Amino acid sequence: MRVKCIVSYDGTDYNGFQIQNEEKTIELEISKALNKITSEKNKIYPSGRTDRYVHAVGQVFHFDTEKNITAYGFKRALNSYLPNDIRIIDVEIVDINFHSRFSALRKEYRYYISTSPNVFRRNYMHFVPNLNLELLSSASKLLIGTHNFEGFCSAKVDKRKDFVKTIYEININKFDDYIEIIFIGSSFLKYQIRRMMGLLIEISLQKELETKILDVLESHDPKISHKIAPGCGLYLYKVYYE
Amino acid sequence: MRVKCIVSYDGTDYNGFQIQNEEKTIELEISKALNKITSEKNKIYPSGRTDRYVHAVGQVFHFDTEKNITAYGFKRALNSYLPNDIRIIDVEIVDINFHSRFSALRKEYRYYISTSPNVFRRNYMHFVPNLNLELLSSASKLLIGTHNFEGFCSAKVDKRKDFVKTIYEININKFDDYIEIIFIGSSFLKYQIRRMMGLLIEISLQKELETKILDVLESHDPKISHKIAPGCGLYLYKVYYE
Repeated sequence: MRVKCIVSYDGTDYNGFQIQNEEKTIELEISKALNKITSEKNKIYPSGRTDRYVHAVGQVFHFDTEKNITAYGFKRALNSYLPNDIRIIDVEIVDINFHSRFSALRKEYRYYISTSPNVFRRNYMHFVPNLNLELLSSASKLLIGTHNFEGFCSAKVDKRKDFVKTIYEININKFDDYIEIIFIGSSFLKYQIRRMMGLLIEISLQKELETKILDVLESHDPKISHKIAPGCGLYLYKVYYE
Repeated sequence: MRVKCIVSYDGTDYNGFQIQNEEKTIELEISKALNKITSEKNKIYPSGRTDRYVHAVGQVFHFDTEKNITAYGFKRALNSYLPNDIRIIDVEIVDINFHSRFSALRKEYRYYISTSPNVFRRNYMHFVPNLNLELLSSASKLLIGTHNFEGFCSAKVDKRKDFVKTIYEININKFDDYIEIIFIGSSFLKYQIRRMMGLLIEISLQKELETKILDVLESHDPKISHKIAPGCGLYLYKVYYE
């Protein structure tokens, strides 16, 4: 049977989601916990990877198992083996055709900027004082819609990849001393949100013109916009399915 | 000259404020940083100690120095040597009669309870689901005023100590999925707030009657109320001076 899990994690102490060598990653911790339960060496399929320091409120992964364990049983057992900075929020037995990545309709990421220094946010928000919110808001509108986002992608990504993606919404919410930027899109390229945020912040600090966004979109060249916002401010918030 | 500092710290990775042996404490970090600047081995006088895992938004300490360094110079230099979970918020050159502890008129502590599980709050709030807010609020009122709080104090405190303290205000604020409890008092005994919170939580979960508070206050016996709320939910928020 196929099992779908929603997982929340604090990415601070991890080298991203994906297993690589012996490094401490989210996937490695989940695999170790799952193996203690099933002894099957189940492969874990996430909705997508997250980078180093990036957090998740609602990352989704699935795995297949022959074990006759209930959804609630998996949730309890996984949480008992996982470290307390990784928590399984929900488990569901799903149709064998469900795929955490390919069945995803849209994804929601949130980026948090603290506008005042705060020791408790050092791993959870990016600190940017004196940011012009109107510039941030107006520049962000240029990113909404269907575009070739190669200019905002990691330079290392395979050239044959499809760089055309759709951003449905970018909503900006201002709180007392922090800003929340919500991105909802079909899917996002590696580094895309952090590079879009990097440029949006430069524009909001009046170090770049708003039109730079159009230049980057038209360039298809990851090298012309090199600013990348820190991973600690980014959260994979929700993955939407049918 | 005497220098007053306001410091904010994330207590998660520290064994409390006070230097003890070689353990990692807030005071040890501040002492090391200060010694790099002055080479004087300045003694640090805090407004009070905080326990293991307890945080500070506005702890105050003072020290004396012969060095001719400005307040801004100390702030910059201290922050450059301190780890990023300890931040100096403000520095002021003060009258030699100022004393961070003895000049304090009142102190404000805040305790945070998360009412839903949240991986990002595991070190910053105490998680208590299904708490009855009306019971919490009505029970807390019994603590306001001048009382002998020995029953809420650590059992290890010197018996000759003055256990009569005044709590001026306890304000409870409810947010979407967390509760903030603000305590303003003359000063507080060791473990007093965590023991008061421990009992308030028991009452809010209907595991104890409200009248238990009066029993503890009248007992002068730290052993009759043994519940202690975790340090991670507690913040020394502000120290008030003239």
